[in-house]
Amino acid sequence: MSIKRLIILGSSAQVPTRERNHSGYFMHWNREGLLFDPGEGTQRQMCRFNVRASTITKIFITHFHGDHCLGLPGVIQRLALDNITHSVDIFFPASGMEFYDNLIRASSYHQGVKMNPHPVEDGGEIFVDPSMRIQAEALDHTIDAFGYKITESDSLTVIPEKLKRAGIFGADIGSLKSDGSIEIKGKKVSLEEVSIPKKGQSMAFIMDTRYCRNALNLAHEVDLLICESTYTSEHSELAKTYGHLTSAQAARIARLSNAGRLVLTHYSQRYLDTRGMLSEAKEEFSNCVVVADGDNIDLPVVKRVLE
Amino acid sequence: MSIKRLIILGSSAQVPTRERNHSGYFMHWNREGLLFDPGEGTQRQMCRFNVRASTITKIFITHFHGDHCLGLPGVIQRLALDNITHSVDIFFPASGMEFYDNLIRASSYHQGVKMNPHPVEDGGEIFVDPSMRIQAEALDHTIDAFGYKITESDSLTVIPEKLKRAGIFGADIGSLKSDGSIEIKGKKVSLEEVSIPKKGQSMAFIMDTRYCRNALNLAHEVDLLICESTYTSEHSELAKTYGHLTSAQAARIARLSNAGRLVLTHYSQRYLDTRGMLSEAKEEFSNCVVVADGDNIDLPVVKRVLE
Repeated sequence: MSIKRLIILGSSAQVPTRERNHSGYFMHWNREGLLFDPGEGTQRQMCRFNVRASTITKIFITHFHGDHCLGLPGVIQRLALDNITHSVDIFFPASGMEFYDNLIRASSYHQGVKMNPHPVEDGGEIFVDPSMRIQAEALDHTIDAFGYKITESDSLTVIPEKLKRAGIFGADIGSLKSDGSIEIKGKKVSLEEVSIPKKGQSMAFIMDTRYCRNALNLAHEVDLLICESTYTSEHSELAKTYGHLTSAQAARIARLSNAGRLVLTHYSQRYLDTRGMLSEAKEEFSNCVVVADGDNIDLPVVKRVLE
Repeated sequence: MSIKRLIILGSSAQVPTRERNHSGYFMHWNREGLLFDPGEGTQRQMCRFNVRASTITKIFITHFHGDHCLGLPGVIQRLALDNITHSVDIFFPASGMEFYDNLIRASSYHQGVKMNPHPVEDGGEIFVDPSMRIQAEALDHTIDAFGYKITESDSLTVIPEKLKRAGIFGADIGSLKSDGSIEIKGKKVSLEEVSIPKKGQSMAFIMDTRYCRNALNLAHEVDLLICESTYTSEHSELAKTYGHLTSAQAARIARLSNAGRLVLTHYSQRYLDTRGMLSEAKEEFSNCVVVADGDNIDLPVVKRVLE
């Protein structure tokens, strides 16, 4: 059973508060564990919210302001301590290579983890394997920042009735799935004949940016959009100055890009209460939520048939 | 009124737990704010326990394992954000200069804080000013580590009755204190004549070490000893292997060095409960406490007369 579940590790912008840690977002994505923007304290938040470090397979850093990356050394060192054997891909803006180097050499530890750095130079597809594609696009912040879109590969769902009719049972089903076809009583049956196509799900992660075309591009038709919402519209001038979005702008991105669900996060410490953010966002886009650290958000299990 | 108060920001060794953050100890020390071993998450713990970043004047790092230093970038960046105008002294083992450099350049921020790095090469006196002396001594860990001792300068306490008898009132008291003497009705009165000597207080901070002579040296006659206590005696072999102390060893250091009060901290995550540590320590040294994050421990206001 595939699971896609977002766990909010931290939802504060710039400085932590008593209630909110610096950034940190963990996504169970089928067999992958995607960690986005590990701010300081991410290691402890993972411990608090039952995310095992060993489940991390990919780490994404949108930009190198401290609140989005200072948790990286702790996470890497925890992976080393736990003796994980798989390698970890790390995506980050190429212009921050020096920060990346400093972060992974910030203190003394046994560097036993195989890390694959992926410095992102330009927008476009930055990773592809049989299970997923990853796209990055430059955002509009005060320093180089990239947003990320993850798209699950389209697949086929076998239909039990069709299998039965074709006389395929037991271990033969596994062979059919892995080989793409099987011979039953001298007749070749292809996987397509007994399946329906299933569209892959997708998500976008957009932090620290002014309203921009690339945000719309990343969010296009995603099932889940995780988007910064540092200010309410009352402080739209601050948002512009410091390179951030208001809740209404985040919701506009979700609406115009036809996103499925919007998660608003990354709140300025001035907002003790996020209800104002939610209500202004809902005027633009109804399927949205505000979050607290520790919240879990499941992606709906949708069986969308490809057209 | 001088205040000397310790605030426990984090009491966990190696990895954080739900209840305990990585290391972090803040000491209000008269007009100074001394921050020891800022592990990851120190910035947020300061926020939780009402320690303003702007009060920090000196930072001490015993060694460069992550749990004792990964909070440094966040603290420095917070100082920059808060536009502090005073400079900050930072003491650390000289062999970790590269880690120090990487930590203060771990992410993108406005480096507006004047930092005075004090790489410690050898044991001995590493800082002295009119108000205090700082001593460092090498400890016995798996990497270079130094413990620190802070000693308040001896001073004079004026005696109201003696002032009155000498005819010194109001603003003249201030002049006497700053100048060391004053002329009253043609007669010179020295500060010493109307005061009694007061011995300065002292504290030692000893982390991550095996039992060693230098720990005794640092703790000699201190009013407060903050000492690691990673294991109970049951795990003394682990303590030896990984370069740590048991609670009983920490207490022995306090007893043999004639310390005033012992604070046991830096607990392995295996101990959900620290009562076992306390009881084994008390067999050696009765004036000791175990702590939880957020605990405040005042130094007693002692008026000890110099012999």
